[in-house]
Amino acid sequence: MPIAAQTLPDDASLAVARDAALQDRVALDFVEDLTTEVGQRQGGTEAEARARTWSVARLRSMGFANVRSEEFQMPTWVRGEETAELIAPYPHRLAITALGNSGATPAGGLTGEVVGFADLAAFDAAPDSAVRGKIVYIGHTMQPTQDGSSYGAFGPVRFVGPDRAARRGVAALVIRSIGTDSHRNPHTGNTNFGEGVTPIPAGAISNPDADNLERVLERASGPVRMHLTLTPRNLGQQTSGNVIGEIVGSDPSAPMVIIACHLDSWDLGTGAIDDAAGCGIVAAAAKRVADMGQPRRTIRVLFAGAEEVGIHGGRAYFERHGAERHFVAMESDFGADRVWRVDSGLPVTHAALSDRIARALAPLGIGRGSGRASGGADVGPLVQAGVPAVDLQQDGTDYFNLHHTPDDTFDKIKPDALAQNVAAWTVTLALLANSSDAVAP
Amino acid sequence: MPIAAQTLPDDASLAVARDAALQDRVALDFVEDLTTEVGQRQGGTEAEARARTWSVARLRSMGFANVRSEEFQMPTWVRGEETAELIAPYPHRLAITALGNSGATPAGGLTGEVVGFADLAAFDAAPDSAVRGKIVYIGHTMQPTQDGSSYGAFGPVRFVGPDRAARRGVAALVIRSIGTDSHRNPHTGNTNFGEGVTPIPAGAISNPDADNLERVLERASGPVRMHLTLTPRNLGQQTSGNVIGEIVGSDPSAPMVIIACHLDSWDLGTGAIDDAAGCGIVAAAAKRVADMGQPRRTIRVLFAGAEEVGIHGGRAYFERHGAERHFVAMESDFGADRVWRVDSGLPVTHAALSDRIARALAPLGIGRGSGRASGGADVGPLVQAGVPAVDLQQDGTDYFNLHHTPDDTFDKIKPDALAQNVAAWTVTLALLANSSDAVAP
Repeated sequence: MPIAAQTLPDDASLAVARDAALQDRVALDFVEDLTTEVGQRQGGTEAEARARTWSVARLRSMGFANVRSEEFQMPTWVRGEETAELIAPYPHRLAITALGNSGATPAGGLTGEVVGFADLAAFDAAPDSAVRGKIVYIGHTMQPTQDGSSYGAFGPVRFVGPDRAARRGVAALVIRSIGTDSHRNPHTGNTNFGEGVTPIPAGAISNPDADNLERVLERASGPVRMHLTLTPRNLGQQTSGNVIGEIVGSDPSAPMVIIACHLDSWDLGTGAIDDAAGCGIVAAAAKRVADMGQPRRTIRVLFAGAEEVGIHGGRAYFERHGAERHFVAMESDFGADRVWRVDSGLPVTHAALSDRIARALAPLGIGRGSGRASGGADVGPLVQAGVPAVDLQQDGTDYFNLHHTPDDTFDKIKPDALAQNVAAWTVTLALLANSSDAVAP
Repeated sequence: MPIAAQTLPDDASLAVARDAALQDRVALDFVEDLTTEVGQRQGGTEAEARARTWSVARLRSMGFANVRSEEFQMPTWVRGEETAELIAPYPHRLAITALGNSGATPAGGLTGEVVGFADLAAFDAAPDSAVRGKIVYIGHTMQPTQDGSSYGAFGPVRFVGPDRAARRGVAALVIRSIGTDSHRNPHTGNTNFGEGVTPIPAGAISNPDADNLERVLERASGPVRMHLTLTPRNLGQQTSGNVIGEIVGSDPSAPMVIIACHLDSWDLGTGAIDDAAGCGIVAAAAKRVADMGQPRRTIRVLFAGAEEVGIHGGRAYFERHGAERHFVAMESDFGADRVWRVDSGLPVTHAALSDRIARALAPLGIGRGSGRASGGADVGPLVQAGVPAVDLQQDGTDYFNLHHTPDDTFDKIKPDALAQNVAAWTVTLALLANSSDAVAP
């Protein structure tokens, strides 16, 4: 059965909306205002709470309905002092930052011999006797990729390296930042230690520092020694929360469209590309669709809390709302660069709708991909439960230059690229939110 | 009287030397080794002393004669703790670094109201009552320039801003970094307080932080408050020194060619572009000229000490060697990017030599400029005393992205551009060192 064409906006009105969105300033203002008036907003902290208050006010002022903050509790880890220096054979201060959930050194730091490995596989292959009690350094060879796939390929050094090192009696782990830039700004990011494994101090050094450390390790005839101080703390359960707002649809029986981003950021920068931009894009696009006339379906905007530190908001949303009917889930959480590809996870019964979306996106330079649509971290539990996703894939070539660094700040936003995102989201949402349920999932 | 043509290398041998130098690895290895095996080497510190030891060994191993370290005493200032955060109306941590010669806050920092000015002129125009006892912020609008002239135009915020602020009873001065990048790496650099003026705490924040602070100042309805901690110390007189090496010429009566760079660096990075590159370039080029056959004139390489912190090495050299006969002075101290222009300060009596140099440089894409040849900071006293300079002007478009920041590290060196410098220096030196004294200065 074909999509009920009469419910969808026609090509001409989509084109008007798309062109207007290319001049969008709403998303840019959103990012500027949030990063200036709140700044960093680490999950579980008072700063994130201020971001929720700010967001509730902003969504209300934009005209969203049913705006509310939905709080939850989560374990919270916060950064302390973080310094590292080589003390032999050549003294060098290193730009370092602790990984989320890192263990702590003694307050005065610890000193140890550094043993280096080119990558995680080399570390895994080394005998325990070579690493026990040592400060282990692990590198990698991550390169920029447009689809961001190199993060998955090289990220395990951070994701699982500290746990593996802890299990092998390593004193502390220092990794090359999971990033593709050459600035003295280390990349943080979460790591996790398995049940019963005592966390060890685990930090990332900037790429120039990693280059230098690798040269030092190669040249040193005697031991390379490092003094490392990381004093993070666990605060126990703290309050985080999701912020929700809605464009209420005309058909209360129609499953809703959920569009997500995450409100929390890492603490080092002001979280402009990760993920103020995502929240600005989805809010601006939803507002534009509302301005085109009340959509059939409710569009629910989800600003998830505490994503960076464990995707707590996405899980809390699913616990509370997972049983509600979601037609499709989307998320913007890959920076602020142009959308270059669309991947539709709509069922084959909605192939015509997927075609229509692809056609509406083509004028923005967005091609159709054959990739799996995964939705994003915060809608992950929904998608896992069977809600289809549509992914507007952003260009990630430069994303890991800034990701989780002090450099994730407002000046990095390219206004034209951000507006292109809003345009892509606007036409996609306009089609999804007005689509029929012909064969709804 | 024409230059004695027979003493100069012919075009063919210059072309061979030039092409060979374009494959140079000597300068690159020099920079890599110095930045790795010594790293930062602030003037007057133990790190700079290690750099002298390293340099003496390196110059000897390269075959330089009369290699020695010439020490001198100088007042030495060292960095302490440096943090700043806005505490109202929005909390923000700021990436800050103290300016050289900054005064110190109390150990626990100071808290004050921030008053902002768009530029130095606006600060100068404000009444004393508006700034007394305040933390003053001063911005500027520096843009990249190929010839680096924007440093002179916008640098006074750093050069004289702190002194002016101290004279007006300002509690502390925070400036926008004198730099053109958008990274969270503040730019340090020296400032000076006049006789009898008590230094106040003076720091630079990174450009993204300055952007943010300016937005906060614009939005705040109440006072903007900052907590600032800068605890640098003055160590009194400490030892610095110049390192000298020579390619001994065949004619002891001929005035020598002096080619300079500075060995010290700021402490935040490893001083790759400022100025390990310069030392690598001049040493590699002198060696290449020696390899072409003993030159007529002695080429003296001067690795000056303590340039960043007051041009102490340049003055010490002049005091000790100013009376010796110098035919021409050159310096490489503007990074590691391509040479784009040559400015000759040779007297009109040597116009043919200047022409010959320009012709030898043209194949490297280097045009002839009409600018004044100033030589550089470390040969400044010589040039002021009448020694002519020849300037191989480097492209400074990107220089102030890295200048005096933690980001001045080896990975920033572009090997091809560095080799182009060596080629330009090689042909220029080969001509200067073999030139006649027809009408020597």
